[in-house]
Amino acid sequence: MQPELRKAARRGRASRQAAVSTTVAPRTRKVRPYTLLDEAALVAIEDQADWILQNIGVEFRGDQVALDLFAAAGANVDGERVTFEPGLARKLCSTAPSEFKLHARNPANTVTLGGDNVVLMPGYGSPFVSDLEKGRRYATLEDFQNFVKLTYSTPWLHHSGGTVCEPTDVPVNKRHLDMVLAHLTLSAKPFMGSVTSPERSQDSIDMARLVFGAEFMEKNVVMQGNINANSPLIYDDTMSGSLRIYAAENQCVCVSPAIFAGAMGPLSPAAVVAQTLAEAMVGIALVQLVRTGCPVVFGSFHSTMNLKSGALTFGSPEANLASMAISQLGHRLGVPVRSGGGQISASNAPDGQAMQDSTGAMWATLLSGAHQVWHSAGWLEGGLVMSYEKFIMDVDHCGVMLTMLQGFGVDEEAFGRDAYLETGPGQNFLSTQHTLRHFITANFQSDIPEAGSFETWSENGSPTSDQRATARWKQMLTNYKAPPMDENVLAALNEFVARRKASMPDEWY
Amino acid sequence: MQPELRKAARRGRASRQAAVSTTVAPRTRKVRPYTLLDEAALVAIEDQADWILQNIGVEFRGDQVALDLFAAAGANVDGERVTFEPGLARKLCSTAPSEFKLHARNPANTVTLGGDNVVLMPGYGSPFVSDLEKGRRYATLEDFQNFVKLTYSTPWLHHSGGTVCEPTDVPVNKRHLDMVLAHLTLSAKPFMGSVTSPERSQDSIDMARLVFGAEFMEKNVVMQGNINANSPLIYDDTMSGSLRIYAAENQCVCVSPAIFAGAMGPLSPAAVVAQTLAEAMVGIALVQLVRTGCPVVFGSFHSTMNLKSGALTFGSPEANLASMAISQLGHRLGVPVRSGGGQISASNAPDGQAMQDSTGAMWATLLSGAHQVWHSAGWLEGGLVMSYEKFIMDVDHCGVMLTMLQGFGVDEEAFGRDAYLETGPGQNFLSTQHTLRHFITANFQSDIPEAGSFETWSENGSPTSDQRATARWKQMLTNYKAPPMDENVLAALNEFVARRKASMPDEWY
Repeated sequence: MQPELRKAARRGRASRQAAVSTTVAPRTRKVRPYTLLDEAALVAIEDQADWILQNIGVEFRGDQVALDLFAAAGANVDGERVTFEPGLARKLCSTAPSEFKLHARNPANTVTLGGDNVVLMPGYGSPFVSDLEKGRRYATLEDFQNFVKLTYSTPWLHHSGGTVCEPTDVPVNKRHLDMVLAHLTLSAKPFMGSVTSPERSQDSIDMARLVFGAEFMEKNVVMQGNINANSPLIYDDTMSGSLRIYAAENQCVCVSPAIFAGAMGPLSPAAVVAQTLAEAMVGIALVQLVRTGCPVVFGSFHSTMNLKSGALTFGSPEANLASMAISQLGHRLGVPVRSGGGQISASNAPDGQAMQDSTGAMWATLLSGAHQVWHSAGWLEGGLVMSYEKFIMDVDHCGVMLTMLQGFGVDEEAFGRDAYLETGPGQNFLSTQHTLRHFITANFQSDIPEAGSFETWSENGSPTSDQRATARWKQMLTNYKAPPMDENVLAALNEFVARRKASMPDEWY
Repeated sequence: MQPELRKAARRGRASRQAAVSTTVAPRTRKVRPYTLLDEAALVAIEDQADWILQNIGVEFRGDQVALDLFAAAGANVDGERVTFEPGLARKLCSTAPSEFKLHARNPANTVTLGGDNVVLMPGYGSPFVSDLEKGRRYATLEDFQNFVKLTYSTPWLHHSGGTVCEPTDVPVNKRHLDMVLAHLTLSAKPFMGSVTSPERSQDSIDMARLVFGAEFMEKNVVMQGNINANSPLIYDDTMSGSLRIYAAENQCVCVSPAIFAGAMGPLSPAAVVAQTLAEAMVGIALVQLVRTGCPVVFGSFHSTMNLKSGALTFGSPEANLASMAISQLGHRLGVPVRSGGGQISASNAPDGQAMQDSTGAMWATLLSGAHQVWHSAGWLEGGLVMSYEKFIMDVDHCGVMLTMLQGFGVDEEAFGRDAYLETGPGQNFLSTQHTLRHFITANFQSDIPEAGSFETWSENGSPTSDQRATARWKQMLTNYKAPPMDENVLAALNEFVARRKASMPDEWY
């Protein structure tokens, strides 16, 4: 290294190390979204969604309140089946905001959903966790808390997530209390509440109220609930009941059809995206019928299968195409989009396949303009596992993608004209003033230790990138500091959790 | 699996197995390219390229012929330095065709460069190879021949490449003869000749002539030579001399500036792409001055660095942005583009990092509309190594990307309306007639064995994807069959190689 550069590097390192804890990830995209489909294709898909809603319809099972709301809004209700004249479902969605704030306990972490904004969050729903030392095992509350801490500690995730992993050592009917408590106390980023029953949804909202206050929450969104359609074309009363509770409280409902192509819908990308749109519009319409103007997210989750073996596949070309199309359909629906991608894979280990699948799915998700990304970090084995090492590798790649979404400048300083005048053909640019001015901040820096030269790496035991990631998550947990919280609020939360736990016997299924 | 599906699967497997050897990869894109930059940014970069060519210029070292050609064409020549009034270099490039055929020995493998076409090829230039059994070692002619065979055997690469790896067991001055012989006899896909000296370039062309005939080659392109600028802003006489030989013979010249940002040019993406454009235009202009209308490819190779450690990085956000911009600039220049991406990584192993880097770089390359992709398979350790296992994983991902570039249909059959009428809410689509009609061909199929469930996988020793790839390349080499060649042609080629080898003493550096 040139001496000038070495000196500047020392200064830069010092300032960089001091600045690590305050790194703030970009929250917006500056590059335009990729538009996969043309107008004709988009209209054809929207027409097909209308065809499904008119000719097949959606069933709301065991929820007479929902059925009555749809009947009053002009839909045709026959038993539990609701059908819609073309255009009606879309019209009912039109009162949902295109952009809104999702408030965090620390206002500096408040994000915006919709528009040019991007919100990344960790995996959701895994019953297992794994790390390279202890292997794969059932997730516990400690694991859940660890992932909340890790997510809080990285700048590259904007959102604490929801059921980051299942705390299987806590009774099923009490887990939501510990999970919401962890999100509210160990983190100060936005979070998701429980949706596994209407009562648990209400508990989640009541706990948030202890932190944010009832008055604030009447007018502002501080949490999200994820409502999955029981694809194909069903909402059960757990989901529609929870949806109605979040909507009544004016908190954000993410409506996510979940389609394994070929099983819960036809196997083609065109059918998957049309059905996703149809199912999502119906859920969003119900939110609006419960409370006009309640913020929603057009969610989706879809997977392809190896149709010979039956194995689920992620990051496949068909799934990535569907993700890109869904972003476009969401932009046209005029609500924030959660694309069905993220950093997802069927792989059993954080190996090459895992990162091929995950990276491809993340490009499809982010380049197409999705606003919120579930499963941005940690997700393995088709969602069965949250991997500590993959979490670190994924988070690093979130940094890569967020940096890329900033594009690059084309002003005279970016072109470095002075550097050309200072050097000339065949000269090295390392010690130019232009390089000295910019080299500290020029390029994205990975937080995973470099492998180094092949020789050094071999002497160190040839550690693959997942092996080099182990030290990083341990270091992050060691360095973790809980965000401060008012003592009275903390006491109220703990009292709430204790009281609710004491009010019911343990249930383990 | 449903009984109907099982029956259809048996029929499908049989027809699929029979069809394996005749699988033909798509050669065109059906989805539109991603346009990263707007008109103003593109014009600013083009203006900066003109600024460089006017104010700094390019040196042609030791090549008076080239200098005289530029002087006659209106450029300013001062010693070995050539400068251009704004617009002149671009005007000199304008006689290069926007699209042309690159003929293969087997006409079925002939590809088109430019337009909506995509041509993928293996890595280029690695002195080492590695596989999981024998480790990392200097590449030999046997390795070179193996990669030519593997490339010929996969449908997902369209082109045999050039110096796929360095046959280090053959004298430096004779390697080109064995490499071209391998491409011409072990493969029947398009290939690249040698460029390491004007004589070796001529040998490459003379050998091709024995196969394609002088008359055919006068009017048709059957090979490419890759000419690297000695960035910044120099062409040495080896490169410009070889360029002139390919151009004189009307064979395709790929002009590839190679810029490590911060060393061979300023560290910003804007500067890298402007300098790439400037250097490439000068090379392309020289091709046109030697022979008007000679087919060219606007090539590029660029890397970022960790500016603190000096380590090269690949798949970085800055490099991917540059790749996407270069595709756009090439489209505007009106010639086929080789983007600076491909499946490239600095990783020492085919691990998660390798595939994160490679997958991201490949998305940037292909989504932005690059026409030809060097380094689509095998490349590791910043190009030092061709890995047999990574080759297999990369090739598989080429299949993923080529499939994705086909987009998806939105006709009534794709929407599967009959399947909805056959089922209904809550029903499984696996046994619908629509699924039965399409499931054999619906989804991309990986050639790497599936991991299977976690339990099965653990019993099998938890093989990561690179470990599962080993069997695949061995199987491909075992099953490889050389494409037939006329005995007289083969004898002429062997005679040529023997005669040229006998005509010079071995040189080892």
